[in-house]
Amino acid sequence: MCELLGMSANVPTDICFSFAGLMQRGGGTGPHRDGWGIAFYEGKGARCFHDPKPSVESKIASLICEHPIKSHVVISHIRQANVGGVCLENTHPFQRELWGYTWTFAHNGQLSEALFELPLSFYHPVGTTDSEYAFCWLLGEIRKAFPEQPDNPAELYAFIQARCEKLRQLGVFNMLLSESIHLFAFCSTKLSWITRSAPFGTASLTDRDMQVDFCHETTPNDIVTVVATEPLTQDEVWQPIRAGELVTFIKGVPQGN
Amino acid sequence: MCELLGMSANVPTDICFSFAGLMQRGGGTGPHRDGWGIAFYEGKGARCFHDPKPSVESKIASLICEHPIKSHVVISHIRQANVGGVCLENTHPFQRELWGYTWTFAHNGQLSEALFELPLSFYHPVGTTDSEYAFCWLLGEIRKAFPEQPDNPAELYAFIQARCEKLRQLGVFNMLLSESIHLFAFCSTKLSWITRSAPFGTASLTDRDMQVDFCHETTPNDIVTVVATEPLTQDEVWQPIRAGELVTFIKGVPQGN
Repeated sequence: MCELLGMSANVPTDICFSFAGLMQRGGGTGPHRDGWGIAFYEGKGARCFHDPKPSVESKIASLICEHPIKSHVVISHIRQANVGGVCLENTHPFQRELWGYTWTFAHNGQLSEALFELPLSFYHPVGTTDSEYAFCWLLGEIRKAFPEQPDNPAELYAFIQARCEKLRQLGVFNMLLSESIHLFAFCSTKLSWITRSAPFGTASLTDRDMQVDFCHETTPNDIVTVVATEPLTQDEVWQPIRAGELVTFIKGVPQGN
Repeated sequence: MCELLGMSANVPTDICFSFAGLMQRGGGTGPHRDGWGIAFYEGKGARCFHDPKPSVESKIASLICEHPIKSHVVISHIRQANVGGVCLENTHPFQRELWGYTWTFAHNGQLSEALFELPLSFYHPVGTTDSEYAFCWLLGEIRKAFPEQPDNPAELYAFIQARCEKLRQLGVFNMLLSESIHLFAFCSTKLSWITRSAPFGTASLTDRDMQVDFCHETTPNDIVTVVATEPLTQDEVWQPIRAGELVTFIKGVPQGN
């Protein structure tokens, strides 16, 4: 199993605090030693870092923890390999372009061999993971159904939920997906989220002796949602996503499906 | 104008020495203050770093200079903006997937408005540069002509040369392109290359007081080709590429077109 971490916010926000907790699970408090990756959106642009090495040993991970990158949407992943060797092209998150947006995808879980019978169309995997294959299939399905960006986002949300549900029938499929505006979070077994807004309190990381007082880090109008495989803090109430449910966030706010 | 730097090698090689020289041109000895980017291939995987800030001030650039990333193919770019604002999505290199390979592209020069009349097919720009538009058009043309990876590479080389020539008719089009195996270098006005192999000598950077003795950095079988807008060293003979010429390298060795 792998660890997912996502963020959606209404102001450019750094994810250092949550990321510091997640990184400990990459060979520190967790068994996820097979690489990690993180994508930060800045406007439509996406900055992506990948490392097939354990995150606790990674110089790039230290750089990200120490030099905050502020972003509206973040998707991060720590890997424990099941399908596909440990190498750069098998390291999440994966990215492809659709409608002039860079789509970013990370997956937690494992899918059955039947996945590889789903026909691909526009997008083809570079590596050998079930995750990247599932992403190529999913984004190809979206492209076939919506050759242009749809006017009605509810149609898109329903379509993504239905296609994710099809993948969930093939195994465990917890997923984070974004194109810079939306953060889509689909749950198969384990995915929780929390929205932080005023009045801000303090929170303590579960995986590391570290506490943050969000009052000092935020302004009263900030809305910041964090999505993770397991709650990252011990003194806040995280909201689990139900199996088969897609929760969609824009600027930190969950959207009605 | 911008600065291009490419590398093709038969063994995983770090580009720290050449990169250190190039980075000085990003606000140091050169006027290219509008961001920089670099892509490293490791097998089929590609690691890409982008920064819209000047390279001489960039913490990520320092990280790359100090912690060698060994790679078979590298494409790097320092930008002086002409078309398109200074932001992450306008920062080279650009990437798209074709045939299950990640294609990477960087461009030096400027193309006329007529470029934007060329019809796009599979790929659409995320940002607003002429460069990314040209890449989307070029890769779409390759995909239409070769829906599958061609058996005869000479056909592909000739096709790429012809399409690059069409772009050159629209302005200045110096380009580096790779899909992890080939490094394609097309010259419009300025692009030179050098192949280093045994017996290795020493070389001094033009832009920085730095000398390297390649004997200590290499083994006798290494073949390393570097392609750059301007020669990066002052004590070696660089080979200029002719206007309209495409030079293709595999594992550091130029291929017959």
